[in-house]
Amino acid sequence: MQADALTTRLGYRFKNPALLRTALTHRSHSSPHNERLEFLGDSVLNCIVADALYERFPQLTEGELSRARAIIVRQQSLFERACELELGALLHLGEGEVRSGGAQRPSILADALEALVGAVYLDGGFSAARKLVHRVFRPVLARSDPAAVLGKDAKTLLQEHLQGRHIALPRYNIVGTEGEAHRQNFTVECVIAQLSIRTLGEGLSRRAAEQQAARLAYDRIAAQ
Amino acid sequence: MQADALTTRLGYRFKNPALLRTALTHRSHSSPHNERLEFLGDSVLNCIVADALYERFPQLTEGELSRARAIIVRQQSLFERACELELGALLHLGEGEVRSGGAQRPSILADALEALVGAVYLDGGFSAARKLVHRVFRPVLARSDPAAVLGKDAKTLLQEHLQGRHIALPRYNIVGTEGEAHRQNFTVECVIAQLSIRTLGEGLSRRAAEQQAARLAYDRIAAQ
Repeated sequence: MQADALTTRLGYRFKNPALLRTALTHRSHSSPHNERLEFLGDSVLNCIVADALYERFPQLTEGELSRARAIIVRQQSLFERACELELGALLHLGEGEVRSGGAQRPSILADALEALVGAVYLDGGFSAARKLVHRVFRPVLARSDPAAVLGKDAKTLLQEHLQGRHIALPRYNIVGTEGEAHRQNFTVECVIAQLSIRTLGEGLSRRAAEQQAARLAYDRIAAQ
Repeated sequence: MQADALTTRLGYRFKNPALLRTALTHRSHSSPHNERLEFLGDSVLNCIVADALYERFPQLTEGELSRARAIIVRQQSLFERACELELGALLHLGEGEVRSGGAQRPSILADALEALVGAVYLDGGFSAARKLVHRVFRPVLARSDPAAVLGKDAKTLLQEHLQGRHIALPRYNIVGTEGEAHRQNFTVECVIAQLSIRTLGEGLSRRAAEQQAARLAYDRIAAQ
């Protein structure tokens, strides 16, 4: 019953249900437990997320891709995905772990999710695992803004990108203000002379306008 | 001509030769270079090696699998594989790198091999990349002895495995010697009481006989 609900949430039905059970079995409960599957699943997950980021963000450097992946596969992120899947209620834990709240512990839930990815990989192959990961991680993988993926604002991202390519930093200039003093609208240009890029951003503060201009400049670089 | 030879050595022909060229292009030469492909290929390689080790060594713990993989994908190992493939002669390097011997530098060659794995993954999919990795890494992946894979002797491996499972350590006893004093043949038993395992090893030294007995005991555990 519960496992059926999980099948629906995963969008995947196991041919070999023993693999699913192992993936959800913590070492405190019994053997086989999920530690070996976690090892496998961690690497499958890393590979699929790397692929997704590589495809989605052609403008990101190797270092930025690494950073973005680390954010997506870190324990807190896996824990959140595991909670969405309600894995806690399905875990097989030893009595001590049950009593001490193991079913809500981020490390245990994150590990179980990795093990689950490994189990789907073994059961259904790489493409089934890929489908699962894209489904479960849609909320993070669907972010189209690299700055958000990287947890950085657009100006920082643009600056780091240019530094990485040894290109002179952008200049930001206010090119217009509108409205009354207490509710002004700013227009700012972002100029990257070396790349012949000039973008305009608008906002209710100078900072907001600069961020928009930076984001547009970054997108322009990506399209070059 | 050279690329054709590589095709033969790789056992893979690129549908999109531009990907192959990018994989072999160092950032000192031109753009697009191989750094993004290296990021992707590193994760594809890690995944495929994890899978291979998971399948081949059902007795290894998560920690042992991690260690084995780290040994297989470390720079020196990748460098050796890249040399076998004679990648050095095919690299596109900037003039400075050519002069300073970049084509023989372990880091550059290891990175190019990772990029090549990434390129095959993009060009032919996961199964093509898997086939390539199994072909290129056959010398290391084919080792059936986990002690060799882990770079440990059998006694150490057995001891660590038992410690990890909180099982009392094995006892080694000489149960026989044959031959003259300067060329004795030793027979040693390895006893793991808790698992009811007893194996016999032979060798021209006590140590060699113990290693053989330990290896057999470890295999016995694996089969349990």
